[in-house]
Amino acid sequence: MNKFIIILSIFGFTLGNAIGQNQVTSNLNVMPWPKELSEQPGRFHIDSTMTISITSETHGRVHMAATNFLRRLSMRTGVFLEEGFPLPGKSANIQIAFNKVATLGVETDESYTLEVTDDLVTISSNTDVGAMNGLQTLLQLTQNTADSYYFPGIKITDAPRFVWRGLMIDVARHFQPVGVLKRNLEAMAAVKLNVFHWHLTDDQGFRVESKVYPKLHELASDGLYYTQEQIKDVVAYADALGIRVIPEFDVPGHASAILTAYPELGSKDGYEYAIERYSGVFDPTLNPTKAITYEFLQNLFSEMVPLFPDVYFHIGGDENEGKHWDENQDIQAFKNKHHLKTNHELQTYFNIKVEKILNNLDKKMMGWDEIMTPNMPTTTVIHSWRGANEGLGQGGSLIDAAKKGYQTVLSNGFYIDRLQSVESHYLVDPIGEVTLTDAERRRILGGEATMWSELVTPMTIDSRIWPRTAAIAERFWSQPEITDVANMKKRLQQVSFTLEELGLTHIKNRDVILRSMTNNQDISALITLSKICEPLKVYSRNKDGIEYKTYSSFTLFADACVVDAEDAEPFNKAVDSYISNSNGTTDKNVLMYLNKWATNHEGFKTLSKNPKISPLYEMSENLSEIAGLLSKALEAKTFSKVELETIKKNLDVLNQPIADVEIVIVEALIKLSRFVENRY
Amino acid sequence: MNKFIIILSIFGFTLGNAIGQNQVTSNLNVMPWPKELSEQPGRFHIDSTMTISITSETHGRVHMAATNFLRRLSMRTGVFLEEGFPLPGKSANIQIAFNKVATLGVETDESYTLEVTDDLVTISSNTDVGAMNGLQTLLQLTQNTADSYYFPGIKITDAPRFVWRGLMIDVARHFQPVGVLKRNLEAMAAVKLNVFHWHLTDDQGFRVESKVYPKLHELASDGLYYTQEQIKDVVAYADALGIRVIPEFDVPGHASAILTAYPELGSKDGYEYAIERYSGVFDPTLNPTKAITYEFLQNLFSEMVPLFPDVYFHIGGDENEGKHWDENQDIQAFKNKHHLKTNHELQTYFNIKVEKILNNLDKKMMGWDEIMTPNMPTTTVIHSWRGANEGLGQGGSLIDAAKKGYQTVLSNGFYIDRLQSVESHYLVDPIGEVTLTDAERRRILGGEATMWSELVTPMTIDSRIWPRTAAIAERFWSQPEITDVANMKKRLQQVSFTLEELGLTHIKNRDVILRSMTNNQDISALITLSKICEPLKVYSRNKDGIEYKTYSSFTLFADACVVDAEDAEPFNKAVDSYISNSNGTTDKNVLMYLNKWATNHEGFKTLSKNPKISPLYEMSENLSEIAGLLSKALEAKTFSKVELETIKKNLDVLNQPIADVEIVIVEALIKLSRFVENRY
Repeated sequence: MNKFIIILSIFGFTLGNAIGQNQVTSNLNVMPWPKELSEQPGRFHIDSTMTISITSETHGRVHMAATNFLRRLSMRTGVFLEEGFPLPGKSANIQIAFNKVATLGVETDESYTLEVTDDLVTISSNTDVGAMNGLQTLLQLTQNTADSYYFPGIKITDAPRFVWRGLMIDVARHFQPVGVLKRNLEAMAAVKLNVFHWHLTDDQGFRVESKVYPKLHELASDGLYYTQEQIKDVVAYADALGIRVIPEFDVPGHASAILTAYPELGSKDGYEYAIERYSGVFDPTLNPTKAITYEFLQNLFSEMVPLFPDVYFHIGGDENEGKHWDENQDIQAFKNKHHLKTNHELQTYFNIKVEKILNNLDKKMMGWDEIMTPNMPTTTVIHSWRGANEGLGQGGSLIDAAKKGYQTVLSNGFYIDRLQSVESHYLVDPIGEVTLTDAERRRILGGEATMWSELVTPMTIDSRIWPRTAAIAERFWSQPEITDVANMKKRLQQVSFTLEELGLTHIKNRDVILRSMTNNQDISALITLSKICEPLKVYSRNKDGIEYKTYSSFTLFADACVVDAEDAEPFNKAVDSYISNSNGTTDKNVLMYLNKWATNHEGFKTLSKNPKISPLYEMSENLSEIAGLLSKALEAKTFSKVELETIKKNLDVLNQPIADVEIVIVEALIKLSRFVENRY
Repeated sequence: MNKFIIILSIFGFTLGNAIGQNQVTSNLNVMPWPKELSEQPGRFHIDSTMTISITSETHGRVHMAATNFLRRLSMRTGVFLEEGFPLPGKSANIQIAFNKVATLGVETDESYTLEVTDDLVTISSNTDVGAMNGLQTLLQLTQNTADSYYFPGIKITDAPRFVWRGLMIDVARHFQPVGVLKRNLEAMAAVKLNVFHWHLTDDQGFRVESKVYPKLHELASDGLYYTQEQIKDVVAYADALGIRVIPEFDVPGHASAILTAYPELGSKDGYEYAIERYSGVFDPTLNPTKAITYEFLQNLFSEMVPLFPDVYFHIGGDENEGKHWDENQDIQAFKNKHHLKTNHELQTYFNIKVEKILNNLDKKMMGWDEIMTPNMPTTTVIHSWRGANEGLGQGGSLIDAAKKGYQTVLSNGFYIDRLQSVESHYLVDPIGEVTLTDAERRRILGGEATMWSELVTPMTIDSRIWPRTAAIAERFWSQPEITDVANMKKRLQQVSFTLEELGLTHIKNRDVILRSMTNNQDISALITLSKICEPLKVYSRNKDGIEYKTYSSFTLFADACVVDAEDAEPFNKAVDSYISNSNGTTDKNVLMYLNKWATNHEGFKTLSKNPKISPLYEMSENLSEIAGLLSKALEAKTFSKVELETIKKNLDVLNQPIADVEIVIVEALIKLSRFVENRY
């Protein structure tokens, strides 16, 4: 879960180059990469006569998937299909066949085979879900010449490595409307993610309508909640895409919102519970010693369970520091009476009672890894999130849980809200080189990327989730040997832009924010800056959780910037290559970037000033000055002391966070200036 | 309604410069322009201490509006407010006071006064809806210096000219998900539109879940329909924004979808009814002679009425050509028996019966102007859409209806799907210089922009509605004297980009489509072209309704282009000015554009070709050649015969529609080449 204050480091077993070889030898842009793929001669041409048929009998879900496939293919190719819907029978030139309609769960067979020849595409699978996976792969195979679009001849046999491939979205800290969820569900399906973990409650809000306890949504949501009908709608939408929905109701901690509505359930009498506006770990906690607490959970969960058909049900259980328990004498007395030595033991007492409630409702309880204590039954599911920085050993709780007999899911290493590079997530292997028995291995269900929403709004959430989550999806689906970062990045770029077909805003909202910043002036100078700036990482934006409130502005420059800034890697690589290989001729790419930045401040200066862009002025000016001097030095092959001093002084400034971003080419600029200093 | 085949011309009373003088003398970007506005000394500074209070007692709707106001202001200014929600009491520095909560209807008092001084903003109104209008105006007043944001000192007394200010969205021809509707409702509220006319059924689909007649959504929607819960959600969302929702169930024509589900209601036995995939006027029509038809409508409307609390209920009634009636002997016999001489009389017979059904359900029946016949009771409401091209006289049916005693609403002149200039709509005055009695004037409720969706998808609909509809909103709200087109365009530009705050995609989706067209290559050359190209107008795209099916691709170049192309007007004006004033010195603006286009093909040529961009190649090449030659001629002041011939040949090509767009600078290029020819 979301340890806000403590700075986490990515744990897991980092796959170095030593482990496995890249198996991706083709130029195809499929992601996640299939289990087995062989390119074949031939091409299937996509033209107006293309048709698709589903030969199996019951096919509601796959019918929709096939229709959406046709729409996206039309959108991408501009081809006007004569038949816009799947046909009955076997007459079509894309044929889908499967044995049965799946009920979604961890046992679902998601495998499929796909074969493309000159005049026929066949997708075969055991379940409709497998067939839908085949359609997603087929769409990604779309290629073109100058004159036509086609699918290349191919044979694919595919199945996932892990059965649980999830994305968690926190809708408590910033509410995300149904439309945001739906477009992200579509994107999940496009990269074969199959679990949407819906973090519905937290200190900052309770986001579900409750008819049994209406104060929950009335008093603890600021009016921003899902009606039960909307919940059903989202769950049905996900199911149609082959995605399971796991709700999370976080207890006993992270309970400020619940206690705003029902303070009598709290652990500290007289405390003024209120919806939390800041970020962090807070004290309000359910009282585990009162009968009404369990009565409340019994009634609430009984109401919620029918909305969420999946058998797994997440109760959070994380980051309860027990401060209010310590401050409550009745709770201390209760602990003594029941021989519960620590707050952790008290929480286990609570968890065991909650699990009984859920078991009676035919649910399997899941919780963050704090719930794994010696007394906790192995029927619960452990969601591993903590690593070395939370005092856990290397390997964390995932392997531990599996060995102890728990089903388990990994999120440590996949905290996308930390805004770290795609590479850093991609190279986290959930299992690594640990040796496991078959039973232990089967208990490792998979993993989840976690989108905590302290700093994201509907305007920016897509750019925080995508495209990195597509690479994580590959980690969860593909074989562990698939670890070539450069190849992944090439494919990711293609996959990322095609997600725009689904309405995803991760690319287009950059310009929306920059237009807003400039009050609709020419944004090209800001775009140039945004391509070398990344939002501050690892919770160093919003220090201590109190720089931003939930209703602060999130349309600042940092919100327009994204991880893996577009121009940074090519420039940084060009500099490295230039320095290591320099034979006296100047690298064209290095100069191209330097000159672009050298002239950029000219454009920036023409902008009519306002308080949103002013903080960037010095950065823009410094960067242009440095880039200009370095460019001149590289071309003239001379360099004055004064120029060097100017560069150093400017670099000191650029090396600090500015306006909640870091400039991710500074290191390369420093290298370049040292090189120039030594050389000329 | 949607006369697809017949080419309409804009009717109404065009306001020339002669009528009224522009009253907009300030530099403010308010739209629609208020009734009375006077600028005052002083500035109210927007900083973190800004607070807002609502002093009236019941204020659910206005509380949400005030909260959203704070969010949008934060987004726009980057100011981190200490208080993110309206406060109770009178302590705040923005104070809202109103007398009562309105029930939305044509009698709702929407007026307000707004005053801004150095340290206080007050919004006063009779109803909460008026207060919400005041908040929208206040937001539009936001200004900035280099250091801060502020509202300028001002006093506004405002009220609408017309009580019915609508936008119709056709969700039948292309379904529009709830998210699309919600963001457009937000945009409507931002420009004080107050009626959402929801065209829910047509030949191409029946878009509402019916529990009484489930085949309607099951068989006649391709799975694309609103559940009843979604309908309620949209209606509630609109109500919270002060917007009424008028549903339209189009009968007896435009009935292919209904008859696909229930063919027994049709007028032609044995006809194979099917969801229509093309555009146009089709024959399937309900049978007005059968009792089951009225039983069906009685039951269907009884089911639908509770979903739509507004008293007005639209039954379409347009474009019934009666072909299937003519072909049915029983219907002919029925006409004879009931002395109904024409199909129009038969339709009136039908309409009168339908009106009784609706009256019994406490609804007021509204229909397109074909329903206005001598026998039709004046309790119905006439929606005027036809003009000169449909055989009606100048002035059409609006004034006629008002004089005959019907309430009436104008859409002729506001057919935004015709993709004509904002100016052409803006200058249509619903009443013009006609003299009316007070009673007649009161019966003219207002107008509606109509977004028929033959050629729009969720990807493109926003750019077809906005920003032009904001100017139409001003026509409906503001005084008739507000007719300065240049000033309107200046304000419109500002209003348009701020709509992006609401998630509107009218600006950002251009690049999405261009990225899709190029398979994610550099789109700058295509952007340059898109700024001088407009999609074909007045239904000349999709000739005869059969070039495109409903599921054809709508992510072509034409879909990236918009009306009032960005570079066209400034270039065309610069050319006119240059030609009329030329004293031998070359106009810098003319040259700037010519040089931009002259070099643009260099960029275009670097694009890897594909079938979506290939159709533009010749256009791009021709344009660059012409622009290069003209630029050279203007600078060198010489011009060869060969060059002239090349230009003429190229202009002939550019003067034709290419890839469903027209190049709207061709006329200016022709002028320029003639000028050059004569001069040099």
